[in-house]
Formats: sequence, C-alpha cells, structure tokens
Amino acid sequence: MKEQVDILIYGKVILTMNPDLDQIEQGAIAIKENSIFAVGSKGYIEGKYSAPEVINAPEGLIMPGLINTHTHAPMSLFRGMADDLPLAKWLKEYIFPAEAKLTEDMVYWGTLLSCCEMILSGTTTFCDMYLFEEYVARAAKEAKMRALVGEVLYNFPSPNYGPPEKGLIYTQELIQKWEGDPLISVAVEPHALSTCSPQLLRDAKDVAERYNAPLIIHLSETKTEVEEVIKRYGKTPVCHLNDIGLLDDHLIAIHCVNLTEYDMGLLGERNVKIVHCPESNMKLASGIAPIPHLLEKGVTVSLGTDGPASNNDLDMFQEMDIAAKLHKFQAQDLTVMNAMQIVRMATIDGAKTLGLETRIGSIEEGKKADIIIINLNSPHLIPLYNPYSHLVYAANGSDVVTSIINGKIIMKDRNVLTFDIKEAMERVNKFSRVI
Amino acid sequence: MKEQVDILIYGKVILTMNPDLDQIEQGAIAIKENSIFAVGSKGYIEGKYSAPEVINAPEGLIMPGLINTHTHAPMSLFRGMADDLPLAKWLKEYIFPAEAKLTEDMVYWGTLLSCCEMILSGTTTFCDMYLFEEYVARAAKEAKMRALVGEVLYNFPSPNYGPPEKGLIYTQELIQKWEGDPLISVAVEPHALSTCSPQLLRDAKDVAERYNAPLIIHLSETKTEVEEVIKRYGKTPVCHLNDIGLLDDHLIAIHCVNLTEYDMGLLGERNVKIVHCPESNMKLASGIAPIPHLLEKGVTVSLGTDGPASNNDLDMFQEMDIAAKLHKFQAQDLTVMNAMQIVRMATIDGAKTLGLETRIGSIEEGKKADIIIINLNSPHLIPLYNPYSHLVYAANGSDVVTSIINGKIIMKDRNVLTFDIKEAMERVNKFSRVI
Repeated sequence: MKEQVDILIYGKVILTMNPDLDQIEQGAIAIKENSIFAVGSKGYIEGKYSAPEVINAPEGLIMPGLINTHTHAPMSLFRGMADDLPLAKWLKEYIFPAEAKLTEDMVYWGTLLSCCEMILSGTTTFCDMYLFEEYVARAAKEAKMRALVGEVLYNFPSPNYGPPEKGLIYTQELIQKWEGDPLISVAVEPHALSTCSPQLLRDAKDVAERYNAPLIIHLSETKTEVEEVIKRYGKTPVCHLNDIGLLDDHLIAIHCVNLTEYDMGLLGERNVKIVHCPESNMKLASGIAPIPHLLEKGVTVSLGTDGPASNNDLDMFQEMDIAAKLHKFQAQDLTVMNAMQIVRMATIDGAKTLGLETRIGSIEEGKKADIIIINLNSPHLIPLYNPYSHLVYAANGSDVVTSIINGKIIMKDRNVLTFDIKEAMERVNKFSRVI
Repeated sequence: MKEQVDILIYGKVILTMNPDLDQIEQGAIAIKENSIFAVGSKGYIEGKYSAPEVINAPEGLIMPGLINTHTHAPMSLFRGMADDLPLAKWLKEYIFPAEAKLTEDMVYWGTLLSCCEMILSGTTTFCDMYLFEEYVARAAKEAKMRALVGEVLYNFPSPNYGPPEKGLIYTQELIQKWEGDPLISVAVEPHALSTCSPQLLRDAKDVAERYNAPLIIHLSETKTEVEEVIKRYGKTPVCHLNDIGLLDDHLIAIHCVNLTEYDMGLLGERNVKIVHCPESNMKLASGIAPIPHLLEKGVTVSLGTDGPASNNDLDMFQEMDIAAKLHKFQAQDLTVMNAMQIVRMATIDGAKTLGLETRIGSIEEGKKADIIIINLNSPHLIPLYNPYSHLVYAANGSDVVTSIINGKIIMKDRNVLTFDIKEAMERVNKFSRVI
C-alpha cells in the first residue's frame, strides 16, 4: 500500500540546491500539505507514494523557486515612464510627482501585476520596500506568493502614514497584523542614510529587535550618497551604521556599490546580508558592487531586481545572467563567479538573506514546497551539458512552466491559477492614464 | 473595389524605424508578394486593400524584424559545454577538439536549431561566420530566414576546405552558388589579424571587391590580440588594416573593444561598419567597445549576439538590454544611448551594417516585408508609456508572436511554420552525445 501525499512531481533533473548541491537525474518529489515530504529517484518515489495530483515533466528541470530579495513591486505602475534621463530629473520630475498621487488601490493592483510577472518568471518569494505596504501584503496574499514586506521609513512626510514619527507605528501594526501568516512576514525598512536620521535608524533597530524582524536598508548605492554621509558624519555609510549599532546579522543591506576595503571587512565580520541588484545599478549608472570580494570575505549575497521602474522587469533569470557577465567583465577574468554560484544567490542564499533558510531556498525534506519547473525542451536550451549554465546564460523567465508555492500549484503550463491576471493588467493600464 | 494584396496586418502601434522614426498608432501594413506595399492608419489601409490573409493584432507592437549582425550559428552544438573557464582552456580543451569533429550534417542541424531560436525571438536576418558555410546557407534557406554567410578564412588548415589556400576558392564557389538568391548572400570573412597574414587579407579584399561582397573580420576583440599585432606589425590592428588597404565602407568589423582615439577616427572617416557584441565581450571578459565615442564619430554600429557558445543565447532583446545598461554603467551617465538608439542598432543600423538598408531594416513602402509582432498584453509590458523602453528594458524574445520574412509568414502564435523544429532539436541532442 502506497503512502498518500498531495502532489507528485517527476522531472528530467532536480537541482536541489542543498548543502551538497545534489543533482538528481530522473528525479521526483512528493509534496504533502505545504511541505516537501520526500525527494529521490523516480523509481523510489513512484514505488512508495501516490497522490491525486501528478505533474509529469519528462523535459523539466526542477529547482527551488527563485527568491527576489529586493524590489518595489508597486512601481510596475511607472515601468518605462521615463528612462534614460539624469537621476535627479527622473526622480523629481516623474517618480516623486507620480508617487504623490498613489493610493492604496494603486499599490494593491500594481503589486498584483508584479506578482503576475514574478510568478510567470519563476519567482516564488519576494522582499519588498515601498509605501502602503499593507496593500503589498494583501496583493501577495491574493497571489499566494511568499513575501517579506516593509513600509519605507524616512524623516519626511509619507504619502501613506503622514508625519515621519508615524512610520514605526505603521510598521508595528503591520507586524502585528501579519504575525503567524504562512506566507507574509514583515521587516523594518528605513530607506537610506541620506533620508534617515541616526535616531530614526536606532528606533527602527529597536522595533526590529523587539519583534525579531529583519532590518532592511539601501546602503552605499551611489557615490553622492557616500559623499554626503562622509561630509555629515565624517565616516562611510557602513562605519556610520556600525557606530549606531545597526551592523549585525539581522541587517539586509541593499546595493552596497561603493565600499571601502574596511567596509567590506566589517560587513563580513558582522554577517550582514547583501542584496546585489546589478541591472538597476547599471541602468541608473550607480556602479558595480564588489561582489567577488564580498564573497571572499564570507558575506552572504543574494540577487534583487530592484523595482520595475529601474530595471524594467522582474525577471530573475536576466538578473542572474547579467550578474554573472558583469563581474567577469569587471574583473577581466572569465572564471569569476561560476553559474552554480549565481544560481545559489538566486535560491538558497536568497533564503539566507531573508532569514528564511530553514524554510525555503532548497529542495530538501521538511522544507516548504516552493518549487518551479523549467521546460528544457526549447531550442535555446538544447543541447544540455550543464543545467546551471543554461539557467544563468540561456534561459529566461518564460521558460518556467510550473510554479508551486507553499505546496499549492500557483501556475501550470504558464497559466496563473490563483487570480485573474487580466484584471490586474486592466487596472494598471487604467491607472497609467491618470499618473 | 479594393485592391488585392497578399497579407494585411493591423496592430496597436507600428514602429517604422524609417528616417523620421514615424510611429503609427492603430497602424496597418499591406504586403504584396515579398514586399511592403503600403503602410498607414488602420482606416486608410482597411478602406483601400483586401487580402486573403489578415493578421489582427490589437495588442501588437509591429516593427521591422531584428538583425543579428554577428553570430556563429552552428555553435548551438556547443552551447553551455564549458563556461566560466579561462579563455585558452575553453578554446583548446573544449571548442577546438569539438570543432575538429564537425561534419556538414552537424553544421546544418546546429544552424537550423539556431534558426528556430532566432525566429522565436524576433530575428529575421543574421550574419554568420563559421565553417561549412554552404550548410549554414542551406539551413537558413530551409528556415526561410534572411542570411549573410561567409566561410571563415585563416592561415591554418580548416576542418572544412583543408589547406588555407583553398579558403578563397571555397568562398568564391559559395558566392557563385548563391548569386541572385532572394534570402541568402555571401561575404568574404577572414577570421582576425592574429590568424590571417597580410597576403590573405589582401587576397580576401580582392575577392570581396570582385564580387562586390562585404568583407567581415573580428577586430581588436582582446587585449592579447592587440598586443600581438602591435608586436608583429608595429601598429594597432586598425592601423594595420588601413595600411594594407582594407579600411573602407565595405568592411564590417566585429567587436572593436580595444581602440585608440586615432583608431576611432580612422573607422569613422572610412565609414567602416561596427558590430557590437556586449554579452559575449562581457562573458569572455574581453572588455567593452567604446560605442558612445564611435557614435559621436558617425560610425554605424549594430548589434550581434556572437555565437551561442559564448553568450549563450541568440536573443537580440537581451543584447539590446545589456548594450543599453552596460554603457550607462561604463560612462557613469544614465543618458548615454537611449532606448530608441538601441532599437535602431538592432534594426535599420543592422541593415546598414550589412549593406542591406535599401531592402530591409525599416517598415517602408517598397522594402522587403521582414516584420515582427510583439504581444504587448503581457504583465511585464504593462503599462505602456514608451514602446522603445519596453523593447529594450522589459521585453524578451518570447514576447514575439509573429514573424514575417520576405513576405512569408514564418511564425504565427509562436509556432514556426517553415520547418519541423522538433527534428532540429532531436538531431542536435543526438550530436551532443558524441561531441
């Protein structure tokens, strides 16, 4: 008598991304409730388990869902609104005026549109920083995606919560409201050193500690920011954060483009998690984060697309491709960061960054079932010598055919099953006419 | 009574890429035989023409087919075989031994597989340099793609034509064989300065002139190559080519990564056409071509994916995206090369590069009907503020739904109609087991 589970998946190859990076040819996975119940060869799983739902993917590469560790999901509303302009002009003449018109409804539908795109391109978890994050959380929940959300905090009035002092109150309400949710969790997210006072940063840290929540900040993104911080505080952004007590293993630092050797040492020592957003950094001409050096110092690095207004898509396959190529170019060395390392950044190291590595990021028994299937039977993925190479250098988001999040099939044969993607597209199209 | 044509296309917006860069909202195109017969508003075309085949694309962006001005199409056989290795090791231990085993059959099927990929990602014309080019031409012809092909020439024995002196004989036979073909034309293609003697280069130039064919060469791709040329000839590769009489408007120079200010001036003066392959240059850590400077000097620049073994795909949308972002990063300036300029490189400037600008590269009456349709009704292409931005920063090859080449519908609703793509995939899979 076979043991009953909920879903069985059979594929051509499983990339587990477990600590041994096991790769299972003709592999299979049994899913029970929201978790991975068993992983093994097709013969083993077939002999032992049965399930009402069986996904046969003889040409499928099965892997953990991708983890996009930094975005501003609602900014799909502004995708392509104003590219190729000087940064200050782009922000002041386009983005800020558009953001002043934002409503809860716009944020909800903008996020849901981004969830469509993320699901359709293999992302199962995203980490967000923006305004009206309650509505980002609601949209992610509607899409049945896993998300770490957080309201942006700064010493300015917010289009959402109003006066700056309300930001942490809003954040705490958000934390309390979503406590225990299986998919949504909440982080404390001060915007950046140029926009947050030391007091706000310390208060943010206190709240993060009280609730055991991650603390997330944009750090050393542009040269201007670094120069301003040095002028104001007499030290680099990383040293400033260290001095006010924020530099520890609960800190997720986004960008980290402009670092000194000393900064890098500190980030490594304190086990700060770093999010690399190469496409946004290139498009906004910010520079390139010294990722190979950070890896040498043992820092955990993951990948983020940044918002869809500065990328302009949320395709993690393209982020992997550009991350790999950019550092070879920069180092003038083809061997810098191989494809396997890049896939780690987009999966298990993404989970480590968000503090979710015991739950997601690899295909291992007991972990939550966040799994994607890539169709290898496509002209641009033939022949197959090395699956990591294909994922990084040849595949794109459209190759993902199936997505499972928390044990639920969210997309099958490229159809999103959890919500009406047409409505999200229509709503955002309508909003775009009044932005 | 309406005038009869062969195909009518109705779309949401036409990017003509004509000299005025006209953009037609709710536009339409009438195709008769292999040419564009009329372009205009939906109302105008609808009132004037009728056709047995009508393509209604109310959510479609219609534009000229993309022109990939440099690839080695058969190298799909080696896609992902050995990435992230030092260049010499990659070539000597993997690529050269694999190439020694090449047969006409392998080249034919490898090319046909690449044609699948190119058609499915919006490329309608490609320019190839490789071995056994007769079989590249045959595969392109079978796929009904437009191609400029050329046998690689060097002062070494070739796995195809044998001793070096046979290379130009093979090339001339190729030119004669394909003369007058509506889709296939032939170029003379010496490999590079490091592998071709001045005599071979001069002979190649003579043959090119005799047959009025383009001359194509890899130029200043790596620092090593430039250093070798300077050591051997006492001048840069560009100056060396100039001195032996090759630098004119029939020369197509691939890569041009390492140029002096003087080189750039010469290339501009002589109206040499340059092919930019940013993805390959990054992945092989060759460097970055000074494209914004070349554009300032009035040089025609187009985009090439390079071969699928050093990219590892043939998706021109990704090439556009990376070209745009890489130069912003390099110049530390967001305004360098806007999206419209990049789309020009992939269309009309591609045609100029190949000497085909009177026939293809834009949607204008009298030009050959090489046209693609992109489905804008996708989550990652919503909302639509600027179509150029979407093409460069958000779209990928999978968004192309329809492709017309020389007036024939080659792909419709992502189905390739001209040949059996499954057979090409199976054949290359089989070959990969013996490579």
